[in-house]
Amino acid sequence: MPFQTIKGFRDFFPEDCALRNYIFERWRTSAAGHGFVEYEGPALESTDLFRKKSGDEIVHQLFCFTTKGDEEVSLRPEVTPSLARMAAARQRHYSKPLKWFQIGPCYRYERQQRGRLREFHQYNVDIIGEASPAADAELIATAIASLRTFGLTKDDFAIRLSDRQLWTQFQSQAGIAVERAGEFLQVIDKMERAAPEATDEKLKALGTSLDAVQAFIASVNENHPVFAAIRNSLAARGLWEFVKVDPGIVRGLAYYTGVVFEAFDLKHGLRAIAGGGRYDNLVSLLSDGDTDMPACGFAMGDVVLGELIKETPVAQKAVDEWMKRNGALDVFVVVADEARRHEALGILQQLRDAGWRADYPLTPQKMGKQFQHAEGAKARFAVIVGTEFPTLVIKNLATRDQMEVPADGLRARLAELFAASEYKNLIA
Amino acid sequence: MPFQTIKGFRDFFPEDCALRNYIFERWRTSAAGHGFVEYEGPALESTDLFRKKSGDEIVHQLFCFTTKGDEEVSLRPEVTPSLARMAAARQRHYSKPLKWFQIGPCYRYERQQRGRLREFHQYNVDIIGEASPAADAELIATAIASLRTFGLTKDDFAIRLSDRQLWTQFQSQAGIAVERAGEFLQVIDKMERAAPEATDEKLKALGTSLDAVQAFIASVNENHPVFAAIRNSLAARGLWEFVKVDPGIVRGLAYYTGVVFEAFDLKHGLRAIAGGGRYDNLVSLLSDGDTDMPACGFAMGDVVLGELIKETPVAQKAVDEWMKRNGALDVFVVVADEARRHEALGILQQLRDAGWRADYPLTPQKMGKQFQHAEGAKARFAVIVGTEFPTLVIKNLATRDQMEVPADGLRARLAELFAASEYKNLIA
Repeated sequence: MPFQTIKGFRDFFPEDCALRNYIFERWRTSAAGHGFVEYEGPALESTDLFRKKSGDEIVHQLFCFTTKGDEEVSLRPEVTPSLARMAAARQRHYSKPLKWFQIGPCYRYERQQRGRLREFHQYNVDIIGEASPAADAELIATAIASLRTFGLTKDDFAIRLSDRQLWTQFQSQAGIAVERAGEFLQVIDKMERAAPEATDEKLKALGTSLDAVQAFIASVNENHPVFAAIRNSLAARGLWEFVKVDPGIVRGLAYYTGVVFEAFDLKHGLRAIAGGGRYDNLVSLLSDGDTDMPACGFAMGDVVLGELIKETPVAQKAVDEWMKRNGALDVFVVVADEARRHEALGILQQLRDAGWRADYPLTPQKMGKQFQHAEGAKARFAVIVGTEFPTLVIKNLATRDQMEVPADGLRARLAELFAASEYKNLIA
Repeated sequence: MPFQTIKGFRDFFPEDCALRNYIFERWRTSAAGHGFVEYEGPALESTDLFRKKSGDEIVHQLFCFTTKGDEEVSLRPEVTPSLARMAAARQRHYSKPLKWFQIGPCYRYERQQRGRLREFHQYNVDIIGEASPAADAELIATAIASLRTFGLTKDDFAIRLSDRQLWTQFQSQAGIAVERAGEFLQVIDKMERAAPEATDEKLKALGTSLDAVQAFIASVNENHPVFAAIRNSLAARGLWEFVKVDPGIVRGLAYYTGVVFEAFDLKHGLRAIAGGGRYDNLVSLLSDGDTDMPACGFAMGDVVLGELIKETPVAQKAVDEWMKRNGALDVFVVVADEARRHEALGILQQLRDAGWRADYPLTPQKMGKQFQHAEGAKARFAVIVGTEFPTLVIKNLATRDQMEVPADGLRARLAELFAASEYKNLIA
């Protein structure tokens, strides 16, 4: 029985890795385009860090273990605790607010299902040190841009926007005890997928009812004052049309304190593509009160987004175009005469030194095989080195045009050909 | 006591992350430039995979544990076993040889010392399915290019080249038992750092002596036939001058079968920067003989390379230049009149949609503070939105030149300014 990946983990064969790199590159460009700078934390952290943030319950979902040095550690299930730790540690070092993003793997020990894996990649975008709703708006604008960059439009996705404060207000009016707030929010969070009778029963046990909750939800629309500042800011950017106010969104995680939102697809019924919100108490909690900084952020995973891209023709076409530009060889050096292999290697080196992606046959091969190899690697040009050396032949593998060129004129001629071709020349 | 990273793990604050990204980008460009395609495996694999490759001893150096589902797993200490597993699984899917590279984290539970961490990044470059020395030469050429791309020259590093076959031959002549070959190679591997008397004693116990070994080493030079094909191939590319034949290099790992090499720095006495060689039996071993493919590869870590870059002024200057180009904001939108914040957000969105890196003050700030912010983010231009709107002011933050421009002409004017400026415009 050959070795296999462990459950919930993936191999990225070259075609999978190219899609992953495309997603990373688009995320990185979007975040940097909005003034965020990249950071990264370790994949392994003290288990206590996650326990302190999320309670003992979280341990069931962790890849946690004790090291040979008796440290209790876990593969990170999310990056926010590391971010809060890092921000608190260097809070005097940077001017506020911090606009930081991160891209890297996270790990959850949970049942495998569509859109969920045990090793996945996450894109985290956070603003730390700014309490104003302007920060929430900036974050939502960045989330929208980070989806539009894949060719997704307002027909493909929307941002469902809510605010935990709405529910705090509802709870106080309905007389729900403060210590049962978490329990109450769990019911609201699961409401959409649960049977109405079950939800009503749970709500009654908390001193309210499904009717009361539904009436409250219906009473909150996009004109509610809690959304006014965010709405103004997003409307000024032409982005409010991506947002649907939906008080039913509360997000599962306990630590949110204000605005919460999710990006979800409008056509395929996938899981949420991204989610986030304001978490003003976390930095203080994780630094034992040493550092108090308001914060908000969102995370987007690669798994659901990857599915959405595959389901959306325009988005998939953009992937294919990107792969053509980034995955192709520029030049394949064909050794037409083995007596000229030495010279062919010199040509190859010259092309590589100039910054072109260039390859050649490692061992003697028939011409036909070499051209197959060149086409398999999607090379744009072949440079044929044969008995006529120092005269070479350049062949455009798309158009089949070919032309002779002296070896010492090769580089200049190729540069012209690339400049004239559809894709940009890789030489800086 | 605030939370800290666990021992041997790093936080990448933005300035550290930028250096990491620079290294990754240079590696990626070098490998792709030599016709390699990127893959990635999972960070967690079955512990048996590593045990089968390296023997039970390896377990002491692993972050290994048992999951809640009773799987024995380890954080990967290296990527080659995953690569061999993946190559065997899809061997019919791709034409040979595979030229594959990978960049990602690895984990070793070992004592912390200079140049060694418990979480580090590795760059792996491998050719699978080609037994010819042409593959070894191609690999060495790629290793050289992957160091030169950082501005390192033949005065900064060299490739120490050897071949395990030399020692197989020596052992048979010296009458060392085949089953003690591993033990013998360990002595040779440690010889450079061990006391000569201790080495001599160990060698005598194996039936030879330090004198005999030293005489053998002295007898092998770059004209030895075992290096002829590699030498021809590298000389044809002008790269032989980077190579020093040194039979003393045997590499610690048991699985090498032929050529072995290390890249080491010439000025600072650091640990090896990269190492690799031929491992023709590994794919067969890990696939229980199902798939037999010759292979060779090298790995380079980010820790020693990072130190070498910092020690080498030309290399550090290249990092600084790259950071200036890639880490800077293009435009900072200054809100000179709060009554025009709405319009400023529209301008901001227009700039971001056009692909520029643009930022703005989230909350009302004095002009001076805004310009400080812009300069802190190394913005190249400020666009000032004030009472004169729709007339804007563009200010070049390097030269302090400023000019008025109507809002509807901003994009075109900025595009001209970027085209004329030192760094390339980010718009495609």
